[in-house]
Amino acid sequence: MVEDVNLSTVTILGAGVIGTSIALALRRNGIGVRLSDPDSAARQRALALEAGTVLSPADPPADVVVVACPPSAVVAALAGAMRAGLGTVYTDVASAKERIVAEAAAAGLDMSRYVPGHPVAAGDIAAPAAVDAEMFAGRPWFLCASTESAPAAVDAAAALATACGARVQRVTPKAHDRHMAGVSHVPRLIGAALAARFADVDGERFPVRGSRFHTTLADAAAAPALWGDTLEHNADHVADELDWIVRELSVVADALRGTEANPVPELEGLLARGRLGHDRVVRHGRARSPRGDGVPGPEDEWFWTW
Amino acid sequence: MVEDVNLSTVTILGAGVIGTSIALALRRNGIGVRLSDPDSAARQRALALEAGTVLSPADPPADVVVVACPPSAVVAALAGAMRAGLGTVYTDVASAKERIVAEAAAAGLDMSRYVPGHPVAAGDIAAPAAVDAEMFAGRPWFLCASTESAPAAVDAAAALATACGARVQRVTPKAHDRHMAGVSHVPRLIGAALAARFADVDGERFPVRGSRFHTTLADAAAAPALWGDTLEHNADHVADELDWIVRELSVVADALRGTEANPVPELEGLLARGRLGHDRVVRHGRARSPRGDGVPGPEDEWFWTW
Repeated sequence: MVEDVNLSTVTILGAGVIGTSIALALRRNGIGVRLSDPDSAARQRALALEAGTVLSPADPPADVVVVACPPSAVVAALAGAMRAGLGTVYTDVASAKERIVAEAAAAGLDMSRYVPGHPVAAGDIAAPAAVDAEMFAGRPWFLCASTESAPAAVDAAAALATACGARVQRVTPKAHDRHMAGVSHVPRLIGAALAARFADVDGERFPVRGSRFHTTLADAAAAPALWGDTLEHNADHVADELDWIVRELSVVADALRGTEANPVPELEGLLARGRLGHDRVVRHGRARSPRGDGVPGPEDEWFWTW
Repeated sequence: MVEDVNLSTVTILGAGVIGTSIALALRRNGIGVRLSDPDSAARQRALALEAGTVLSPADPPADVVVVACPPSAVVAALAGAMRAGLGTVYTDVASAKERIVAEAAAAGLDMSRYVPGHPVAAGDIAAPAAVDAEMFAGRPWFLCASTESAPAAVDAAAALATACGARVQRVTPKAHDRHMAGVSHVPRLIGAALAARFADVDGERFPVRGSRFHTTLADAAAAPALWGDTLEHNADHVADELDWIVRELSVVADALRGTEANPVPELEGLLARGRLGHDRVVRHGRARSPRGDGVPGPEDEWFWTW
C-alpha cells in the first residue's frame, strides 16, 4: 500500500536516542534527514554520527516531520511545526497516545496530516550510547490513524516505519494506551518499586548474579523525568492496571497471613491463572523459537489478547 | 576448608529436575550416586540419563543424603532417611528454609547432621527437559548451618555444592527466606498476576515479540503446585514483601487518579528511588560486564544489601 509514497526527506524534531536512531535508519535507506534540537549537545552528538544535517529555515517542506520529544512537549512541537510549514505529513513517537491525540484535536491542529505514532524500541533508551540504526528492526511501530487521517498521510507514516525496518501495527489510541499500560508502563513501575526496596536499606550481602531478578530491576534504570511524563500521559490506564495488580497481590497477602484457612489453594489458583495467561501470550513464539527455550527468535510472532 | 572431606557416595531422594541435575553434576566428578523416587517415571528418566543407580536397602550409608523434594515433604523425608540410616550427613534443596528448620528441630531430628541447603538454579525447572549438569555452575548455593551443625557436616554439604560447581554462601534461615521473598518469590507472584490478566480476556491482538515483558511473564510458567508449596513455606516474608509493593503501587495509583495534585513528583520520586536501588544492586556487575551493557557475564559478582 505504501509503494507509491515519496519519502525523500524527513525532518526530525528532537535529537535524542529515538530521534537519532530513526535518523540513522532512514539515512541507510538514502533518505535525506534534517534534525533540530534546542539542546546543542544532542545536536552535536547526532551530527557526529552523521545522522543528518541541521534543519535550516531555508529548507523546503519535508515529506514527513517526526516529533521525537517527550509526551508533554509533543502537541506544542506539532503546532509549531505545522505553523512553520515544516512538512507535508506529521507523526510523533510518544509511548502514550490518547491524551496527545485529544489535545492536538482540541488545539485545532490539522488531524488529516497528523498520524500519531509509537515505534516500540528494543532495549533501554536511557543513555545516548543506546542510539542504534537497528533499534526498530522487526519491532512493532504503532500508528493510531483515525477516520480523519488522510490515506496518503497514513501511507507516508507507514513508509517511514517500514524504512526503519519496523512492522506497522494499526490501532486506536485507547487500545494502544491500555496495551502499553499492561505490558510496559506498569511492569516498569513494579520494577521501580522492587528496586526501591534496595535504595535505603543496608546489611547483609548476597550474590544474585545472573538471576531473572536483574531483568526485573533493569526496568528501574529508566530516566525518571521521561518516564514520569510518559506515565502521567497514560494515567487512567496505568491506574486501572495498578488497581488490578494491587487487588491480586492483596488477596494473596491476606491468604498468606490467614491463620485459619490454608493459603495454598489461593496461591495455586493465581499461579495456575498466571500459567494459563502466559501460555496464551507466548504459545505462538514458543513453538517456533529457534533456541527451543521459549526465548523469541527474530522471526517469531508474539501476541497477546485483550 | 573442605579439602579433607570424603565425598565418595551421595544418595539423592527425589529424581526431579533438581535432584537429577545434582546427580549428573556429581557423576561428572566421579562421585557415586544412588537415587530414590516413588515416581517410577521420574526414576526411569534419571536412569536413562545415567544419573546414578537405584537406591537399594543393601547399600551402605552414603556420605551425604540430599532430600530433593518439595518443601512440605522435606521434614518427613529427612526423618525417614535418618531412621533408616541412609547416610552420614543430610541436606535438602528447598527454596524456603525457616519453617523446615523449625519443624525438623521440633520433630527431634539430629540437627548436628542436617545442614539445610538451597541450590539456586539458573533458569526454569518446571519441565523434565530442564535437567542439566551445569544447572548450578557458578551459582549461589545457600547453606543454613547453625551452631548445632557439626563442622564436618557443614564441610560435607559444602563439598557437595562445590562438586556441582556452585559457590557456597552461608546464611541464616531467616535472612535466606527474606532474601528469596524479595528477589524470587514475590517477583514470581507478580509475574503470575501480570500474566493472569491474559487468562480470561479476549480481543485485539498485538505483537509484543522480543519485549522485556516476556521475561516478566516467564515467571508465570512455573508449576503451580510446587510454587504454591514453596510460597506457603515462606508465608510471612512473602506477605511482608507483598505489603511493601502494594503500598508503593497504591500510592502511585492514587496519585495518578488525583484530580487536584500533579502526579508527576510522586511518579518521579518512585522512579528515582528505583534507579538508586537498581544502581546499588547492579553496580558491581555493570562495571565489569564483558558485554559492557549491564548484562552479567559469567565472572561478574552481583550483590544486594538488606
